[in-house]
Amino acid sequence: MRKAVVLLSGGLDSATVLAMAKKQGFACHALSVDYGQRHRAELDAAARVAQALGAAAHKTVRFDLTTFGGSALTDPNIAVPTQGMIKDGIPITYVPARNSILLSLALAWAEVLDAQDIFIGANAVDYSGYPDCRPEYMKAFERMANLATRTAVEGAPLVLQTPIIAMTKEQIIRQGMKLGVDYALTVSCYQADADGRACGVCDSCRLRKAGFDAAGLPDPTRYWPQ
Amino acid sequence: MRKAVVLLSGGLDSATVLAMAKKQGFACHALSVDYGQRHRAELDAAARVAQALGAAAHKTVRFDLTTFGGSALTDPNIAVPTQGMIKDGIPITYVPARNSILLSLALAWAEVLDAQDIFIGANAVDYSGYPDCRPEYMKAFERMANLATRTAVEGAPLVLQTPIIAMTKEQIIRQGMKLGVDYALTVSCYQADADGRACGVCDSCRLRKAGFDAAGLPDPTRYWPQ
Repeated sequence: MRKAVVLLSGGLDSATVLAMAKKQGFACHALSVDYGQRHRAELDAAARVAQALGAAAHKTVRFDLTTFGGSALTDPNIAVPTQGMIKDGIPITYVPARNSILLSLALAWAEVLDAQDIFIGANAVDYSGYPDCRPEYMKAFERMANLATRTAVEGAPLVLQTPIIAMTKEQIIRQGMKLGVDYALTVSCYQADADGRACGVCDSCRLRKAGFDAAGLPDPTRYWPQ
Repeated sequence: MRKAVVLLSGGLDSATVLAMAKKQGFACHALSVDYGQRHRAELDAAARVAQALGAAAHKTVRFDLTTFGGSALTDPNIAVPTQGMIKDGIPITYVPARNSILLSLALAWAEVLDAQDIFIGANAVDYSGYPDCRPEYMKAFERMANLATRTAVEGAPLVLQTPIIAMTKEQIIRQGMKLGVDYALTVSCYQADADGRACGVCDSCRLRKAGFDAAGLPDPTRYWPQ
């Protein structure tokens, strides 16, 4: 059985990608990274999702991006914006070099596992302001990765799989529902509470809610008590 | 003053690179990474070197590559080879995707600092078996980095500086001595003791010793008591 490393945040997108990788027949090695996010609920969700979707393994690597600051998601001095933050330019919730770091960690594990495939739930539609969610970035990472590892030397090329990069949230949700993803297990909110309940107003919550609406499906998200 | 992020392991090569970056007029932000190395002596050395060479700042990011295993430098079940380990192929001391991870962390800090230069003491002469020490890998990383960050969007390109990539150990030592590097502060040994004293027999020790010999300079390295 071919092995894959699947980056798993515990959110809607990466849960869908895990289900898609599983469906393609991969033994999925789910990788979560605790980089100093504001809350642990997302990482708890990742563990639930990995189990529910039958991942072959699940690891969480801890390191502290708060050392550098510079993002609302890792710097306690920058507030998470709640209204109208989706606009031109790079959102303040962008985490510097996040995908490069996550993918490099995935690359390390892939090399140890002798896995040739890495899956990431990056999306260039919703996150058009994040430079490291664009297809051209992904291509450049894949090229770099193929020069970085034993793989490059020994001739078994690494493939960076980005199956939802061009999908709308509606399409992602429809795909996941077809594959049996239980989205009630996932947490997308930038400021979920300790129980994994969502704020309903941050960018990520609004995108997610709009996706369920557009798909004409009930939103299983648990929200903060009003 | 232009800012640079300089990866600093505490070894001979990266200490030399820090001195070179300083000489070029950069405000040097030294970055060390604790990825689960076998010993802490190298990180202690990094702090001493950063101070001695007048780095503008020094940060250490901790994360745990032992999670993945697969290298003599991070897996306690794999012994550090001591004799004749320099040969064709990839040495067992190669750490999977190490430079990709280190450079991605440097990229994150560079972006927060608004620094356009990252320095790394990679060397393709001594470490010809490490795929991620080759110039073509460095070029591919630089290209990826320029698509990954605000920099890419806002048009101030990132430069990955590899000033010693093609130098012999002798040349590196001569360069560092000229710039006033105190190599007694540095630790290169793969299995240094808690005081930073070197084994004298591992690959890294043998390369270092041969470099001082070739340069006709006294070796200031402190070795284990015989």
